[in-house]
Amino acid sequence: MDRYPVKLVLPVQWGEMDAFHHVNNVHYLRWFESARIAYFAAVGLAIELEARPRLRPILARGTIDYRAPVTFPDTVTVEATVRSFGTTSFVMGYRLHSQAQQRLVAEGESVIVVLDAEGAKTPLPPELKARIVALERGAPPP
Amino acid sequence: MDRYPVKLVLPVQWGEMDAFHHVNNVHYLRWFESARIAYFAAVGLAIELEARPRLRPILARGTIDYRAPVTFPDTVTVEATVRSFGTTSFVMGYRLHSQAQQRLVAEGESVIVVLDAEGAKTPLPPELKARIVALERGAPPP
Amino acid sequence: MDRYPVKLVLPVQWGEMDAFHHVNNVHYLRWFESARIAYFAAVGLAIELEARPRLRPILARGTIDYRAPVTFPDTVTVEATVRSFGTTSFVMGYRLHSQAQQRLVAEGESVIVVLDAEGAKTPLPPELKARIVALERGAPPP
Amino acid sequence: MDRYPVKLVLPVQWGEMDAFHHVNNVHYLRWFESARIAYFAAVGLAIELEARPRLRPILARGTIDYRAPVTFPDTVTVEATVRSFGTTSFVMGYRLHSQAQQRLVAEGESVIVVLDAEGAKTPLPPELKARIVALERGAPPP
Repeated sequence: MDRYPVKLVLPVQWGEMDAFHHVNNVHYLRWFESARIAYFAAVGLAIELEARPRLRPILARGTIDYRAPVTFPDTVTVEATVRSFGTTSFVMGYRLHSQAQQRLVAEGESVIVVLDAEGAKTPLPPELKARIVALERGAPPP
Repeated sequence: MDRYPVKLVLPVQWGEMDAFHHVNNVHYLRWFESARIAYFAAVGLAIELEARPRLRPILARGTIDYRAPVTFPDTVTVEATVRSFGTTSFVMGYRLHSQAQQRLVAEGESVIVVLDAEGAKTPLPPELKARIVALERGAPPP
Repeated sequence: MDRYPVKLVLPVQWGEMDAFHHVNNVHYLRWFESARIAYFAAVGLAIELEARPRLRPILARGTIDYRAPVTFPDTVTVEATVRSFGTTSFVMGYRLHSQAQQRLVAEGESVIVVLDAEGAKTPLPPELKARIVALERGAPPP
Repeated sequence: MDRYPVKLVLPVQWGEMDAFHHVNNVHYLRWFESARIAYFAAVGLAIELEARPRLRPILARGTIDYRAPVTFPDTVTVEATVRSFGTTSFVMGYRLHSQAQQRLVAEGESVIVVLDAEGAKTPLPPELKARIVALERGAPPP
């Protein structure tokens, strides 16, 4: 699975640059997060805001490789995929592309742990896993 | 009422500077917000996160006067006061001081409207108003 | 002059919401800033990052009226205009529209002061003023 | 080397929480960055903002392990260390501690590559390396 089925196109904002005149590193994580949330929505892993959602995805680990600095003005494309499954977790991959530079500017990965309403790690529901597999295989999101 | 009874001391972070090498204007609003929340806590205007809090303070209007740029490294002091009351609202004032420059660097004001659990504007409860008046007069927060 | 000749379409990101489940107020200022920078670019008020640019626009005052909360998912349109000129300053207006709500969600205004390379207030160059007037009148940006 | 010779104490701001009522993951990176910049300052790796600084530290890779969510109100302690040296790079480690929870809430690591004025990877100057080693050994910053 390495197709990046979810893709967002996001404008770089001037104010995202820091004193080095590059987009500050924190904004890459925001972009990855936006792609992750779009992926969750596509597979029905509801980002419920109730006090006790049935399933709550939690970020356990994140990695980011910065390939090239991004500067304003630019538009970036951020893509997300699910790379592998654990019992109570799964691994997502991200890719960030700059339109102005026409190149890959960052890659990332994160481990998502799934908690139940009590906050305990819980096995991935088979229907959620099936929807992820279908999305990765190219099925349109349900 | 112009005593600024609530005061926070906050470090300037390098990453808050933008490409002009000044703290970006959005961070001033974050600092004012932090002072506002501290004020709310001091008068028991709970920042409840339940689905339907009894009272919900809403930001209706904000003004900010930038007196001088702030740069890293520095530590700022941000202060909050309640300037006046309306029927279903009140006006807060803010003041931002730079330790490195030993001067006032910004001032601000915001109008806070109070909503009830249904989201309708509601008169300020007399006990809330009394706690604000007491705090402004120098009474220790309850 | 009230035409808002500059317009940006920006996606709301999930992580821009705060614990009240609304887009946090600081992000409105970021959106206004992005529209302001686009306006500056359209009239050749270079956002130069050299140590001593010939002209440096400085934010002196900002006002924002929050009309309705914005939530994810949504796409906002932010527009900018120049409302009036002072000797060494001009006033910009902003308007924020929510596609999901099909309504105006915020309005804002800011006073921009123009500094010279020495950091002193300087009269607006006539050619800059002419380009702004042309843009407001509907001339395509040069 | 695992002593974390640089330490910052930072208040959690209410507005750093997201719609899950936890501090959003991007702010951990900002905190790590602040500790990194403080470390750079302590060893004289100037965070120069000139157009062509002699040495420019660049973030090449970042990793973060989230141990527990952080919520407002809280104060965090963020610490930084240099873990190892490569020829043109070094590895920094970070640790984040919550005062309210009295526990470690996150750990991180980043690879810093050093570029010269032309933007090419350059060997770490021996005097910079010596200052880092001294700081890690407990010598007061020069």
